[in-house]
Amino acid sequence: MKRTVYNADHEAFRETIRTFIAKEVSPHYPEWEKANQVPRELFNKLADLGATSFDIPEEYGGAGPTSFKFQAVMQEEANRAAVAFGHYTVSIGIVLPYLLRLANEEQKQRWLPGFASGETMLCIAMTEPGTGSDLAGIRTTATLSEDGTHYVLNGAKTFITGARNSELCVVAARTSAPTEDRRFGLSLLVVPTDSPGFEFGRKLDKIGMKASDTNEISFTDIRVPVENLLGEQDHGFSYLGQNLPRERLSIGVGQTSMAVAAIEFAKEYVQQRHVFGKPVASFQNTKFVLAECDTEVSAAQALVDKGLELDDAGELTAADAARIKLFCTETAGRVIDKCLQLHGGYGYILEYPIARLYSDTRVSRIYGGTSEVMKTIVAKDMGL
Amino acid sequence: MKRTVYNADHEAFRETIRTFIAKEVSPHYPEWEKANQVPRELFNKLADLGATSFDIPEEYGGAGPTSFKFQAVMQEEANRAAVAFGHYTVSIGIVLPYLLRLANEEQKQRWLPGFASGETMLCIAMTEPGTGSDLAGIRTTATLSEDGTHYVLNGAKTFITGARNSELCVVAARTSAPTEDRRFGLSLLVVPTDSPGFEFGRKLDKIGMKASDTNEISFTDIRVPVENLLGEQDHGFSYLGQNLPRERLSIGVGQTSMAVAAIEFAKEYVQQRHVFGKPVASFQNTKFVLAECDTEVSAAQALVDKGLELDDAGELTAADAARIKLFCTETAGRVIDKCLQLHGGYGYILEYPIARLYSDTRVSRIYGGTSEVMKTIVAKDMGL
Amino acid sequence: MKRTVYNADHEAFRETIRTFIAKEVSPHYPEWEKANQVPRELFNKLADLGATSFDIPEEYGGAGPTSFKFQAVMQEEANRAAVAFGHYTVSIGIVLPYLLRLANEEQKQRWLPGFASGETMLCIAMTEPGTGSDLAGIRTTATLSEDGTHYVLNGAKTFITGARNSELCVVAARTSAPTEDRRFGLSLLVVPTDSPGFEFGRKLDKIGMKASDTNEISFTDIRVPVENLLGEQDHGFSYLGQNLPRERLSIGVGQTSMAVAAIEFAKEYVQQRHVFGKPVASFQNTKFVLAECDTEVSAAQALVDKGLELDDAGELTAADAARIKLFCTETAGRVIDKCLQLHGGYGYILEYPIARLYSDTRVSRIYGGTSEVMKTIVAKDMGL
Amino acid sequence: MKRTVYNADHEAFRETIRTFIAKEVSPHYPEWEKANQVPRELFNKLADLGATSFDIPEEYGGAGPTSFKFQAVMQEEANRAAVAFGHYTVSIGIVLPYLLRLANEEQKQRWLPGFASGETMLCIAMTEPGTGSDLAGIRTTATLSEDGTHYVLNGAKTFITGARNSELCVVAARTSAPTEDRRFGLSLLVVPTDSPGFEFGRKLDKIGMKASDTNEISFTDIRVPVENLLGEQDHGFSYLGQNLPRERLSIGVGQTSMAVAAIEFAKEYVQQRHVFGKPVASFQNTKFVLAECDTEVSAAQALVDKGLELDDAGELTAADAARIKLFCTETAGRVIDKCLQLHGGYGYILEYPIARLYSDTRVSRIYGGTSEVMKTIVAKDMGL
Repeated sequence: MKRTVYNADHEAFRETIRTFIAKEVSPHYPEWEKANQVPRELFNKLADLGATSFDIPEEYGGAGPTSFKFQAVMQEEANRAAVAFGHYTVSIGIVLPYLLRLANEEQKQRWLPGFASGETMLCIAMTEPGTGSDLAGIRTTATLSEDGTHYVLNGAKTFITGARNSELCVVAARTSAPTEDRRFGLSLLVVPTDSPGFEFGRKLDKIGMKASDTNEISFTDIRVPVENLLGEQDHGFSYLGQNLPRERLSIGVGQTSMAVAAIEFAKEYVQQRHVFGKPVASFQNTKFVLAECDTEVSAAQALVDKGLELDDAGELTAADAARIKLFCTETAGRVIDKCLQLHGGYGYILEYPIARLYSDTRVSRIYGGTSEVMKTIVAKDMGL
Repeated sequence: MKRTVYNADHEAFRETIRTFIAKEVSPHYPEWEKANQVPRELFNKLADLGATSFDIPEEYGGAGPTSFKFQAVMQEEANRAAVAFGHYTVSIGIVLPYLLRLANEEQKQRWLPGFASGETMLCIAMTEPGTGSDLAGIRTTATLSEDGTHYVLNGAKTFITGARNSELCVVAARTSAPTEDRRFGLSLLVVPTDSPGFEFGRKLDKIGMKASDTNEISFTDIRVPVENLLGEQDHGFSYLGQNLPRERLSIGVGQTSMAVAAIEFAKEYVQQRHVFGKPVASFQNTKFVLAECDTEVSAAQALVDKGLELDDAGELTAADAARIKLFCTETAGRVIDKCLQLHGGYGYILEYPIARLYSDTRVSRIYGGTSEVMKTIVAKDMGL
Repeated sequence: MKRTVYNADHEAFRETIRTFIAKEVSPHYPEWEKANQVPRELFNKLADLGATSFDIPEEYGGAGPTSFKFQAVMQEEANRAAVAFGHYTVSIGIVLPYLLRLANEEQKQRWLPGFASGETMLCIAMTEPGTGSDLAGIRTTATLSEDGTHYVLNGAKTFITGARNSELCVVAARTSAPTEDRRFGLSLLVVPTDSPGFEFGRKLDKIGMKASDTNEISFTDIRVPVENLLGEQDHGFSYLGQNLPRERLSIGVGQTSMAVAAIEFAKEYVQQRHVFGKPVASFQNTKFVLAECDTEVSAAQALVDKGLELDDAGELTAADAARIKLFCTETAGRVIDKCLQLHGGYGYILEYPIARLYSDTRVSRIYGGTSEVMKTIVAKDMGL
Repeated sequence: MKRTVYNADHEAFRETIRTFIAKEVSPHYPEWEKANQVPRELFNKLADLGATSFDIPEEYGGAGPTSFKFQAVMQEEANRAAVAFGHYTVSIGIVLPYLLRLANEEQKQRWLPGFASGETMLCIAMTEPGTGSDLAGIRTTATLSEDGTHYVLNGAKTFITGARNSELCVVAARTSAPTEDRRFGLSLLVVPTDSPGFEFGRKLDKIGMKASDTNEISFTDIRVPVENLLGEQDHGFSYLGQNLPRERLSIGVGQTSMAVAAIEFAKEYVQQRHVFGKPVASFQNTKFVLAECDTEVSAAQALVDKGLELDDAGELTAADAARIKLFCTETAGRVIDKCLQLHGGYGYILEYPIARLYSDTRVSRIYGGTSEVMKTIVAKDMGL
């Protein structure tokens, strides 16, 4: 169905990104997957295209307030080619907003220009082995030094994505014992990844998302200057999740475009592949399965596009974003599975993009809040 | 999610309709269901509200071109109350467009004012026992009299909805033997239902949709004046289906609002009903099921609203309408089934509106083109 | 797949029942549905076939312990013809076991011979308006008369199936105030339906199951002799549900055979019906849908047959019965829905057996314990 | 539910295998997955347990006719531990039956003792790049030498599993041009994998099944002695697929036990994992999801067990095996997906067995005949 959310600027940017992917990403992507990492320079190149300046005020070298649609275009194009820009969306979509919201003037001057220019990439360290999404259970500690100049950081984190390609890591740590308000006592620290004591533990071998690293990380007596405290000490908990609606919209955009891509790959395959002397595309089952996929994806697209408009208008609620994430990730899961099936045995081989999409999509029903968490949010919004 | 398709005029009309339903429809609806018919006056009252004037040019007593959104509002309000206006949507949504498109000046003057004023209701007779949707197989004949003044109509039709409350019936009949073009030879005749020889056969007892009659009808030597031929003789086949996109959009609107209503009924029930000392609403399963329903319906609503905008812009394609019908009817089927389940045993009792919705919704995956036909249309649109 | 659960005796009984249905049931069934009741004589005729003697000891005129497979055969044959024997399964499958387990010698002599001979049919009155499945909330009272000769019964019940064709009704009533053990104080009384004060309230109009009546019933100062107390006074709660495993197996048998029947009706329809010059059966979608249905039903059948063997061996656990009911009712729901769809518009017309199956099957996910209750039982059995 | 298919011998063998896996397989499995290969000695060790002698006549060093249940036990135990024995099931379950059926006396003496003793492992080369399952399109040629002593084999194959660990490879090649019977002209040759000209091409990187290699292989002027022709020249096509029913039963066994294992892993995880201060197991959603999984798997198990009994009785039909494969693979796919979801983020990390099961199970709906092929077989069996 005809989409109406993009204007000429968005489409021009799409062209740029499409060309960039064809030239700079797709040819190398299999190597990057093998390496479990994209090359650091990729982000500098993206910066050259302006893709790291969105929403950063002009005084810090950015492009000023930017419609999220530009990032949506980037995801659509990446998924169209069945690639990803490493942990780019984590850096710009999940971590940067913390800096934009919480950093003081001095910090902004210190950090934002580097981000805009592609020199500084960001990662975030929340989850600990054993705590999961229950952040009040965090056991990593940041103890203020006696002279009050720095924190001493100790602890361990897991599920850290993109740390090897990041210069700064936002770390959630306990700075005070919990009071009866169990949310009290957490703080956010910005820790350079080359700090002494910042150590990589096991790399987590994932089902998919192979071109970005996910690690365990340990902190041993890292000295973090107090100037790197983000927001107010002990009130870190309240800062968490403020950008979740857009993060979830972003996952919705990504998964919908993955499903769109899966349909395209399947269409191409069934048209070229013959069994019993006929193209696979000529079987009624093939047609019906692809028509079902296309129809469900049309609904997901309508929902996402509505989300993009609401986001532009500053009206995207947490519950709407939850609906979008839930619907789009569940739809993508089903659609990609069906499109893989149409590939027969080739669908199981990772050199086929459909296999990559299949392996990649599974985590989307989990990260950014599981489908179960989304249902909880929606139910609450319904007054239940 | 916030909807943006309706303006103040639509919302004012909504208020009117809501009040009308509460006063004139809901209190009597159980009787109407028992009678398998709404009272004929209902349509006159709807006419008084302006609901039979849409799209009829002002010179024939109508309101001129009207956004389909007004009809959408009517369906939403009817379904919100778990009622229906008899065969109103058949008359205005399916049959009237034939008159608007095909009637000549004299015919328009003869028929349209009556429609606009609520005096003339319409039904349509296409399907024959044994032919199903394959219209080229029609065996009802209309033989031109020797003096060329009238056709003599003989044959039998089935699945005729609303005939008992209609003054005119559009009948598809064979006027010439088929040539090698098997679509040749059909004509559309406008037959007054009080014509001698127009006889009602069995009433078809349906799973739901109890408040409108569906009948077999037979034609025995009915004399139909040639002035009642619609369009050109023998070219009736080409006239069929021209209004299908809007008809299917309409079904999408209707089913989506039925699903919305089902969620409301279920919410109300689970909040008031207690088991083991707790409201049913407090169980996680209840919350999750309703959140899933709400999320799927949000996607359906986004898709339908996009369809309403495209229709207003004159850009609703046949394939888009097929996607909308397919998605919304399948979604409504699933959602209403789940909402019934939350009612426990009461969900199976017809005095509960959820049971009525359940019985009514099933046919929507069949009429207006089955889900299988929709998939065929979508697949073709995808180039498969 | 080849079944191995039945021996020659079962198959001979099947022949008898099949012939009986063809002659005595099918020709009259549409009338019975209209009347919302089967004729009382049907049960006498079933008694003549021996179908009311199962499990009744020989000294009371019964056949002695009988494999449940005979009742399974009856259900399979009824569903094969898309009919039902009124409330026969309620009487023999749900209520009779209470008499067999709880009646004292005198009561057995009084009641069982009549049941075996078909003169006495049974119904049961548990649910009250507003209490649902939470039986501890029962408000119907049975007050012992001062002279201790009878109880005075007052209250109202709902969802009573088959009362109009029953001579005796087992009623759960409160005989003492609840203690801290809220299960204390309930008793079971056997109440003749012709007792003064036994009054029929509204007939509940159901989505399906049209050939048996479901009613509200009220009790006004009914005198019930103490000789009609079943088991011990005040301990009625503990008697409830003892026969549930077999009742749920029975539902599993019934729903599986309904699904088998639906496939047969659909097969027949698609082979005889032509669209676009080809039998519907020749489309790949038709074949695939029916093959999916057949495959799922094969699994349900394997599960049910395992349940029948376990029941014969006295090893059917409550959790296994819950698994069987859950799986078979959910499968039947899906399969019958798909088979209806293959009928197109005819599937919505109640004279087609598929429409009857569709309307009937829906309640099976609710009665005998909802799917949600089944899941609770299974989860507990898993140690969760 | 209580299973009844295994006797004391099977259970004793189960103990042996369970101990063997715990000691010899599980500790090394992660390495084997990294190496994409199990060590060759694994098969010798399995031979020591008697696991390579099944069905091989005693005169060739085997155990004589053996119930397939022993192999079923092996699969159940492997999946219980989320491991696999490399390409063992391919060798014994898919390729060995060709030798047992087609080898002449001399060939049996030459090959079977080595298989029974674990010295000879087998692989099979059917599929060619571009031909898929349409074997009549095979382009690999085997040209009889002028002196009639050997064939000269040329061509390329793909999707060859286990070749690196096999001593012999059964190759389908064209020995004559097709006649009007396009099935004519194919032959099966037994080719030692150390033959000059037997070359490994690309290793195919799969979504899962990491501990067995899948390769492209090319044949360049390989001299295959005529003594290695299996069956009659040019009639190879008719030999194909004769063992498919048991192969599909075997996949059904394997997938069902994978689903059983997935439920166990999920149960363990949710009981030990806490969120918001409560074990994940205590949420109603968790209980319901696991109960649904358990129920579906109970049905799959009942179906598989019926299949095992039919196989023992020599009555397993091709259509029944298709039903079993279709149902069990679809069920395993759904169940494992849900069990992964209950693991949250950990479910996406390959060190958790659930992630391994998820990656492994996907191909089961494709290999051994896709779900679509199964439906075709079932539909034909239904007379459609």
